[in-house]
Amino acid sequence: MLSFENDYSRAAHPAVLDAVVRANEHLYSGYGSDELTAQAKAKIRETCGAPDADVWFLVGGTQANQVVIDTITPAYAGVVAVASGHPNVHEAGAIEYAGHKVLTLPHHNGKMDAGELDEYCKTFYADANHEHMVFPGSVYVSQSTEYGTIYSKAELEAIAEVAHRYDMPLFVDGARLGYALTATGGDMTLEDVARIADVFYIGGTKVGALFGEAVVFTKHNTPKHFLTRIKQHGALLAKGFVLGAQFDALFTDNLYFRIARNANEAADRIREALKAKGYQLTFDAPTNQIFVTLDQPTIERLERDIKLGFMEKADDAHTVMRICTSWSTTPEEVDQLIALL
Amino acid sequence: MLSFENDYSRAAHPAVLDAVVRANEHLYSGYGSDELTAQAKAKIRETCGAPDADVWFLVGGTQANQVVIDTITPAYAGVVAVASGHPNVHEAGAIEYAGHKVLTLPHHNGKMDAGELDEYCKTFYADANHEHMVFPGSVYVSQSTEYGTIYSKAELEAIAEVAHRYDMPLFVDGARLGYALTATGGDMTLEDVARIADVFYIGGTKVGALFGEAVVFTKHNTPKHFLTRIKQHGALLAKGFVLGAQFDALFTDNLYFRIARNANEAADRIREALKAKGYQLTFDAPTNQIFVTLDQPTIERLERDIKLGFMEKADDAHTVMRICTSWSTTPEEVDQLIALL
Amino acid sequence: MLSFENDYSRAAHPAVLDAVVRANEHLYSGYGSDELTAQAKAKIRETCGAPDADVWFLVGGTQANQVVIDTITPAYAGVVAVASGHPNVHEAGAIEYAGHKVLTLPHHNGKMDAGELDEYCKTFYADANHEHMVFPGSVYVSQSTEYGTIYSKAELEAIAEVAHRYDMPLFVDGARLGYALTATGGDMTLEDVARIADVFYIGGTKVGALFGEAVVFTKHNTPKHFLTRIKQHGALLAKGFVLGAQFDALFTDNLYFRIARNANEAADRIREALKAKGYQLTFDAPTNQIFVTLDQPTIERLERDIKLGFMEKADDAHTVMRICTSWSTTPEEVDQLIALL
Amino acid sequence: MLSFENDYSRAAHPAVLDAVVRANEHLYSGYGSDELTAQAKAKIRETCGAPDADVWFLVGGTQANQVVIDTITPAYAGVVAVASGHPNVHEAGAIEYAGHKVLTLPHHNGKMDAGELDEYCKTFYADANHEHMVFPGSVYVSQSTEYGTIYSKAELEAIAEVAHRYDMPLFVDGARLGYALTATGGDMTLEDVARIADVFYIGGTKVGALFGEAVVFTKHNTPKHFLTRIKQHGALLAKGFVLGAQFDALFTDNLYFRIARNANEAADRIREALKAKGYQLTFDAPTNQIFVTLDQPTIERLERDIKLGFMEKADDAHTVMRICTSWSTTPEEVDQLIALL
Repeated sequence: MLSFENDYSRAAHPAVLDAVVRANEHLYSGYGSDELTAQAKAKIRETCGAPDADVWFLVGGTQANQVVIDTITPAYAGVVAVASGHPNVHEAGAIEYAGHKVLTLPHHNGKMDAGELDEYCKTFYADANHEHMVFPGSVYVSQSTEYGTIYSKAELEAIAEVAHRYDMPLFVDGARLGYALTATGGDMTLEDVARIADVFYIGGTKVGALFGEAVVFTKHNTPKHFLTRIKQHGALLAKGFVLGAQFDALFTDNLYFRIARNANEAADRIREALKAKGYQLTFDAPTNQIFVTLDQPTIERLERDIKLGFMEKADDAHTVMRICTSWSTTPEEVDQLIALL
Repeated sequence: MLSFENDYSRAAHPAVLDAVVRANEHLYSGYGSDELTAQAKAKIRETCGAPDADVWFLVGGTQANQVVIDTITPAYAGVVAVASGHPNVHEAGAIEYAGHKVLTLPHHNGKMDAGELDEYCKTFYADANHEHMVFPGSVYVSQSTEYGTIYSKAELEAIAEVAHRYDMPLFVDGARLGYALTATGGDMTLEDVARIADVFYIGGTKVGALFGEAVVFTKHNTPKHFLTRIKQHGALLAKGFVLGAQFDALFTDNLYFRIARNANEAADRIREALKAKGYQLTFDAPTNQIFVTLDQPTIERLERDIKLGFMEKADDAHTVMRICTSWSTTPEEVDQLIALL
Repeated sequence: MLSFENDYSRAAHPAVLDAVVRANEHLYSGYGSDELTAQAKAKIRETCGAPDADVWFLVGGTQANQVVIDTITPAYAGVVAVASGHPNVHEAGAIEYAGHKVLTLPHHNGKMDAGELDEYCKTFYADANHEHMVFPGSVYVSQSTEYGTIYSKAELEAIAEVAHRYDMPLFVDGARLGYALTATGGDMTLEDVARIADVFYIGGTKVGALFGEAVVFTKHNTPKHFLTRIKQHGALLAKGFVLGAQFDALFTDNLYFRIARNANEAADRIREALKAKGYQLTFDAPTNQIFVTLDQPTIERLERDIKLGFMEKADDAHTVMRICTSWSTTPEEVDQLIALL
Repeated sequence: MLSFENDYSRAAHPAVLDAVVRANEHLYSGYGSDELTAQAKAKIRETCGAPDADVWFLVGGTQANQVVIDTITPAYAGVVAVASGHPNVHEAGAIEYAGHKVLTLPHHNGKMDAGELDEYCKTFYADANHEHMVFPGSVYVSQSTEYGTIYSKAELEAIAEVAHRYDMPLFVDGARLGYALTATGGDMTLEDVARIADVFYIGGTKVGALFGEAVVFTKHNTPKHFLTRIKQHGALLAKGFVLGAQFDALFTDNLYFRIARNANEAADRIREALKAKGYQLTFDAPTNQIFVTLDQPTIERLERDIKLGFMEKADDAHTVMRICTSWSTTPEEVDQLIALL
């Protein structure tokens, strides 16, 4: 059975696993206070071109979203996101559990429009009753988005400009940041992200790690006593060095970007084939998530041999399904998939 | 200066105030454990035709919404409401502060459509990823709605039927229940509400009381240790008998409905006049809130003599304003208003 | 039946009630934005000798404690209180519901010792693991305390000094502040409280009002968007002017202090009588709460004619009971009580 | 430098690491829905002798405590624990962040006394004001405790009996369960724990795993929609199979207990040596945590060569330090330590 179900089905890149195995030869102090973690943070800061950045390692994406949004959003405020944003839809209410409302804007192929963000805030502050409402207190976007699309540098800068105008930090969810930054047609580097965003994370779980997300506060702007806040959320890993070892490997010799690029290349080939065979791509997106609108018979035929991901019902007869490549997808798997289309 | 700004500008109906003054002649035990409160509860139960109802008195509407929604909605779930619902828009995130997401449906002149509620739930449970999402756990509607419209008995029954099918209690916010039940063209009684809803409240703040909302759990279905939950929310009034005295007065000789009817009669007259003079009513609504879409010059002209309420911007040139009558509006005030239109 | 059960059994002082009745002659804007409320705030600021103070009106004591502690305590921190403190014992976990731990010190007749507070903080910051613990983030004391005792000016200043040294605001719960400031032997004025505390409240519920607590942030140090935070807690009263009217009356012609003094005078007489008759006073306290340790037969005898309050079991044979006077206690009631002892 | 700092300094037992490496050869479905996880759960159920047990894997100890306590404790209630309990002291307020108070009993060498638990509950329910207080809603104990001591079977049964009498589930924190169950003089098996407790967890982080705790609801008593609750807490691991692989290895051929026993044997030897050399053991405890009360010069001398753990100040001149062995401690390390004492 071929699987293009998601990008977190395989444990870890061999070099990452190897780093964990090698870490087993030493003893490390706990909670990320070790030298391996320090080294990984230094490499990330350097790759970000951000000597003033604070780097923290967390275990997973929803956890990172919850901890970051909760700590950067004032108590009287919510986080602004597009309606299709992961925290609004697929995190079981983790943000609301932490006491904050998710304030939603319409999405455009998964993306936020800077003008609409501006309009939202303008309307909010113009409302005579706004003190009875939830203030927009931070902005959440994902790069790449839930629909596999990416922001251009200009688009993200425009959002940041609006966010800062209304005194909101901009948070970029980078669960799939590697795939976004190595997509064909993308114009953004990690340095750009670190320059534009106030805080973002570099997803490891979906790009080669066993687990782990590197949260980067880009301007020494870590919320006060952040370690305590992490612990309070039940999110502090005792053996922090296991995270350090993995990110140290991912940020050695450009591994993170090399393996991310692999997923995009595989996806590009699949997209070509889909188009050639007349399939309907749901979104025009350049990263490792390909959404196709399929009728039921086609789904049944494909699922005999291929594990696909479910996205949503399109209408009574059609469903949006996801073909997801990853850092570990092989050319042979792509060949097999294309042959089955 | 004439004021039609809202329905909570005057302290209380004289009979209600008088009941409080008379209560001052006695000592009462605390926290609603007194006999005056017991008597008021008995009268409400009787008027509801619901001998199995549990009645609780809270101080205000947002408080009632927060306490009720928090206690009837499971921890893994949110409350379903229309997007224009008060807890979604004008309660400063009180529901999210209590840890629950507000799951929104589109509104139709402020009202929820039972079919759309059904569709929402069906889609939710059909989603392969729904365990990663916020379960619909309770249903919130308001009667009358934020736009002054009312549900017919059939409409509310249909919503209750869907809610119960998906194992959700139906909560009716009755901040303006008096106005809803005495509106021209309405077909529902308090008994109907008590029969159809699992929990609702009878708004006192906007219908003759200094403050106070009577929360009714209609079928001995009060959440466990509800008094403790109220206290935990900071919502337990020490001198509960002040609430008891007021509701005892409101439910003596049908006072609550008589004074509510007064507001609707005033509103009916104003609506007639508005239509006659060619004003554009924003919604077709029969209760004490009249929304009119006005251009800026008209607003400025009217606000020279009349305090109106702001609802929302309609477009660059127009604003939706509210003319709100209340239990205390006099025929003379209506005459003056009409003369100024 | 004579009642010395508590100090919130009678609705309100006639002058306060009268102010509410008079307020009924006018229409006021909502949520405390009216001129009556403004006037009451000005009078309080003046009596406090604190022109820079911000005054807010809330409905009840637990609510005030929850809203204030939640808004002044950082998210990574708890509030330090003595173990007998009201929020730690008798508020149904309202502080923890708001996400904060109550960090407890031993009490000394209900009071906190400044030296112990210092020791607690010193030990906390000296602990190598303190980032895994709850930071002391604010300090809560009550004046008078749950046991009727009061802090001297020097004692409260010492606590404030320690609190500020560790970057914690000092919050004084004044549910019974009137009784504390007019107690025989007390050396503190309202001005002193306003000078020493960062935030405190002047209790109305137990000193002549129907309900209401005046929260005073003494140095323009109101937490950001406090009105929104109040609303978020479900604690914003629609008819704020009902609070304004009451406090305006209480702070006219020194009424608040005059009626508070009445309770202490009654209590002083009762204490005299108790001592003369050989009763055992549980605490040496000068305010309106008198705690006596009684054996079961005495309790049964007294409760035939007098409603008393239950405090706690002392041992198998004895119970600590409370005799509570109030602003409304009459000399005749005191005579009757003494005759029954 | 020799390290006896803690039991989470080394990544993982080779067999556990090897299981993760082997898992890398396959693709697995996400969030613990894979067959490797199912197999690990089956092995745990079998070792527990509890065919009706539900097993869930979480990442860390504080997270497990937060998720379990939050989901088993009613909203109106707190969790009863001894004052020295980990959630009360060293979890940064994670329980209060989740809205629950930790209700504390005194500890006896880290342990709860069943009689005191009974007394606490009896007093609570006898208190006339208990509805204004936090109900005792669940019971938390740790096996082994924070001081390395263990409960006998009879002691734990007594606590369970009291807990159930007051309608509280008993939760056993087993972060170091392996060490507790293989301690010299212990009389409890994993089956006993599964029989006595309502929910407990088997700590992996401190007993051979990279990370991971196996939460066991012993009687098909998993809280409703527990997966959603886990996600809501940000605690759902995408690659759940990495947890499955590790626990599958730990529960193959009795590995978990064999490696736990190693730590206790090392600790027994160290204890012997300490006693022989006249050191003062702070607690009489049989597991892998040895607490010694040391004067400053001794600490300085030892810390030249050995990393120790800080526990707490004993007095001005003495500090309680921890010598902690683990599953990975070698006989040679023990020899070296003893030579240095």
